[in-house]
Amino acid sequence: MESPLDSLVRALSRLPGLGRRSAERAALALVRDPDGSLDALQRALADARDKVCCCDICGGFTFRGANPCAICSDGLRDTSILCVVEEPGDILAFERAGVFRGCYHSLNGRVSASRGTGPVDIRLNALVARVRSDGVKEVILATATDMAGDATAAFVRELLAGIPGLRISRLAFGLPVDSGIGYSDPVTLRRALSGRIAETDPAS
Amino acid sequence: MESPLDSLVRALSRLPGLGRRSAERAALALVRDPDGSLDALQRALADARDKVCCCDICGGFTFRGANPCAICSDGLRDTSILCVVEEPGDILAFERAGVFRGCYHSLNGRVSASRGTGPVDIRLNALVARVRSDGVKEVILATATDMAGDATAAFVRELLAGIPGLRISRLAFGLPVDSGIGYSDPVTLRRALSGRIAETDPAS
Repeated sequence: MESPLDSLVRALSRLPGLGRRSAERAALALVRDPDGSLDALQRALADARDKVCCCDICGGFTFRGANPCAICSDGLRDTSILCVVEEPGDILAFERAGVFRGCYHSLNGRVSASRGTGPVDIRLNALVARVRSDGVKEVILATATDMAGDATAAFVRELLAGIPGLRISRLAFGLPVDSGIGYSDPVTLRRALSGRIAETDPAS
Repeated sequence: MESPLDSLVRALSRLPGLGRRSAERAALALVRDPDGSLDALQRALADARDKVCCCDICGGFTFRGANPCAICSDGLRDTSILCVVEEPGDILAFERAGVFRGCYHSLNGRVSASRGTGPVDIRLNALVARVRSDGVKEVILATATDMAGDATAAFVRELLAGIPGLRISRLAFGLPVDSGIGYSDPVTLRRALSGRIAETDPAS
């Protein structure tokens, strides 16, 4: 039989970013401090379990009693631009950056052949309904830049292509900030090159 | 008021090895999978909280219903050699390595001026009592090799110095395996040099 300490290490090592050794250190820290960090984590988990849910409109995280979420309820946000992301966490990344004042739509999934998830598994019907009924003028595809992200973006693009007057865009590809050419993979370099921006215009 | 998701991120980021960003990713993974990883972690925490305790003899981790621990109860271990460590987790490291067949004594703390922890805060009386009553012939000091570890080792050494017939040793200092000279700090190099081992003996 697995010991309670080993079970805790295993549960912790399932978290992204925690390898086996870190999970062991974390488990030891928790059992060393049962009244402090262990209790605090237990309370936070129970609280998150009870209260965190997905917004009925955008699919992002919100809390019981706050549905629609704070963003969807914010009268100052531009409802005519919709940023389509894969995960609720992606919305948090945009909000942290503070660079977007439109609204979001989280698909809460992606089209992935390897995982066997297809278009029916993600919030596509809700997206089409929103675009048709809410007077959306632009949909920004903000899926990941890997194969499944590309497939998901292609799927959404095709699905929305027939809607008259709707502009569909995708986030720019290129070099991330604080990155060197030598560290960049070939696909990123090719995309950065083909998407290069003119800095001087010889015609002017 | 802090949101349940932020509380969870904060509780997770208190774990060693989890920075703010990793804690955020872990929290998102947990709330995305409430019936899976979140429930599993909650159960494991509750189980560890209820069942993990410290062995009355060595101070290492054990479980309710298994006190003294498996090592202290193992009739095949050599009770005449005692390896003194700072933390229960240190015992697990020795056992993982499988290099020691004696018994352990965890101080469950260290003498540290900066943290204000002194000799009264650690399991020193229990150590002296064990050494006096159990026929211990050798105490191996296996504290950390930082300043507080040195201070703790010095303290234990002094405390046990008067016991007749007791050998006191400390783990060897030197280069760790898979490490280069160029990466070693000056103190490690000095200790590795002064503790050098003869490979040929010109007198023989």
